[in-house]
Amino acid sequence: PTVIPVAVAHGDGIGPEIMTATLRVLEAAGARIHPVPIRVGESVYREGHTSGFTPDTWGTLRGAGVLLKAPITTPQGGGYKSLNVTLRKTLGLYANVRPCRSYAPFVPTLHPQADVVIIRENEEDLYAGIEHRQTREVVQCLKLVTRQGCERIVRYAFEYARAHGRKKVTALSKNNIMKLTDGLFHDVFRDIGAQYPDLEQEHQIIDIGTARLATHPERYDVIVTLNLYGDIISDVAAEITGSVGLAGSANIGPTFAMFEAIHGSAPDIAGQNVANPGGLLQAAVMMLGHLGQHEVAECIQNAWLRTLEDGVHTPDIAGEHTAQSVGTREFADAVIA
Amino acid sequence: PTVIPVAVAHGDGIGPEIMTATLRVLEAAGARIHPVPIRVGESVYREGHTSGFTPDTWGTLRGAGVLLKAPITTPQGGGYKSLNVTLRKTLGLYANVRPCRSYAPFVPTLHPQADVVIIRENEEDLYAGIEHRQTREVVQCLKLVTRQGCERIVRYAFEYARAHGRKKVTALSKNNIMKLTDGLFHDVFRDIGAQYPDLEQEHQIIDIGTARLATHPERYDVIVTLNLYGDIISDVAAEITGSVGLAGSANIGPTFAMFEAIHGSAPDIAGQNVANPGGLLQAAVMMLGHLGQHEVAECIQNAWLRTLEDGVHTPDIAGEHTAQSVGTREFADAVIA
Ligand SMILES: CC(C)[C@H](C(=O)O)[C@@H](O)C(=O)O
Ligand SMILES: CC(C)[C@H](C(=O)O)[C@@H](O)C(=O)O
Repeated sequence: PTVIPVAVAHGDGIGPEIMTATLRVLEAAGARIHPVPIRVGESVYREGHTSGFTPDTWGTLRGAGVLLKAPITTPQGGGYKSLNVTLRKTLGLYANVRPCRSYAPFVPTLHPQADVVIIRENEEDLYAGIEHRQTREVVQCLKLVTRQGCERIVRYAFEYARAHGRKKVTALSKNNIMKLTDGLFHDVFRDIGAQYPDLEQEHQIIDIGTARLATHPERYDVIVTLNLYGDIISDVAAEITGSVGLAGSANIGPTFAMFEAIHGSAPDIAGQNVANPGGLLQAAVMMLGHLGQHEVAECIQNAWLRTLEDGVHTPDIAGEHTAQSVGTREFADAVIA
Repeated sequence: PTVIPVAVAHGDGIGPEIMTATLRVLEAAGARIHPVPIRVGESVYREGHTSGFTPDTWGTLRGAGVLLKAPITTPQGGGYKSLNVTLRKTLGLYANVRPCRSYAPFVPTLHPQADVVIIRENEEDLYAGIEHRQTREVVQCLKLVTRQGCERIVRYAFEYARAHGRKKVTALSKNNIMKLTDGLFHDVFRDIGAQYPDLEQEHQIIDIGTARLATHPERYDVIVTLNLYGDIISDVAAEITGSVGLAGSANIGPTFAMFEAIHGSAPDIAGQNVANPGGLLQAAVMMLGHLGQHEVAECIQNAWLRTLEDGVHTPDIAGEHTAQSVGTREFADAVIA
């Protein structure tokens, strides 16, 4: 069986620790991948590359076709563009897929029935990064929505729902206020939805939709929404089902795919062997599925679930229900075992 | 004691029912107000006023200085501007104050300790309503943030916290992505915060902030944020503490104030005597406080709390813990009694 080259970014903060743990699990499970390290983030800035990327990185990435990425840090301040957003836009990763489910009773949650997949438009909206200072006192940011962008993400959501045996797709937007931009998204959802009569469909305003997601996540199945709303609600969905530390995500484009945890680089706990590799491991499982290595993916997923069931947790999840509170490395050992 | 003229909009959908119930309670409690009805919303559109307002309304409003408003409906479609937004902007109501607290054990909630006040900027952001179609395929909406707008709302939040014996103010924004717009809000918060050393202060990114609010509302006290974020998180805060049906809000400007429930006009249950007047009643209590009628405000608040404690609820809240499930009118009777 072919071994596939996969670009790997170890990232910043807790990134290197959780990436090392994740790669050890992948290797032990027999994933047929060949990690090709790329450098992006803090160390690259320090060398004077203000983009956060070295010039050769894009070639390596395009050669690989797939990137497994640990959290990276973009310096604060006006001069720096978010590396995450640059990656998503440069590589054309228009669909951000974020499954959030509860692992009750092994991970405490108030919402044991939750199992929702957020499908977030990943290139447009306020994330297009078009901001300007009009006067010293007035600043503006442009929210950009295109028909093509809406069609692509809405179709992706319906196809995803079908392929994964899901029953319902909910669109969230603020089309009662933003009648042109969110209105376009809403209209496209309704029009394309007509081609999927096998799937239940609904549209909700983002305010009450987010509130219902927070109180009744089990009533949602697949949610499709614009970039910024998706950013907010995926943290909500992940946190109420257990922890942002447990959710992975896929960033999908026509010719490239990037897989990452949904959490950040958590510099405050970096280097202490306490970070939870679960989110990145979930991302890696999604990556293996994307590469067609379904058996390895399932094997890792089952080993991870079994570890949770055994009550083995990193400190972020550990609690009264925990048999063993362990470090990042020891958690990986347990998954491998 | 002077009787103060208060403009009153009975609104659409469930509006007239909950307004009638609320005004009956105000009268029974001896509120020294004189309701001056204004017409705005559906019936006005039907007469051909495409703005949703009759020409004389603005004069009446400016004469009164205060508006108690039931939910109103803006027709769907590109031609109509939201009436709520028009009211807020025309009257200069820059601060939207939304207290959300739990009434456990009398109203079921997973978060019995929650007691948070959302202070939402109310005139700028994407709500400025500047949208345009660039091509048939590309639409844009302008997010507008001004230094003056940020200063005003941030200062309002700190002053509110002090005046109400609150301990902490949390600012939420996405300044890691929108470095100019949300960045300005963040900088203003930091700068003005320095003048309030007696108050604890923190800033969080809106994604994880909303998620934490959904899971740990009790860790928040006063939250200040931009318009759209405030729209979303106030529904989250209201819903997790019990119900959007129980939250009132104040829209405050330099020369005018408007008070309203945070929920919509719920046309599906209109005219059935089942709507909960609680949110509008809370708004009326805030209004009486604003008018300096603190004793009447407290009397109504206590009567309402006592009604909840007695297990008397409209059907939206009624459940196993309920002694009596009653209609809108009968709920008002119970509060009055
Ligand atoms: C780090 C940040 C740029 C990113 C985003 O806003 O998309 C993150 O919050 C996420 O959700 O992946
Ligand atoms: C009805 C709508 C215009 C309004 C808003 O978006 O502000 C509502 O959701 C609110 O929160 O008061």
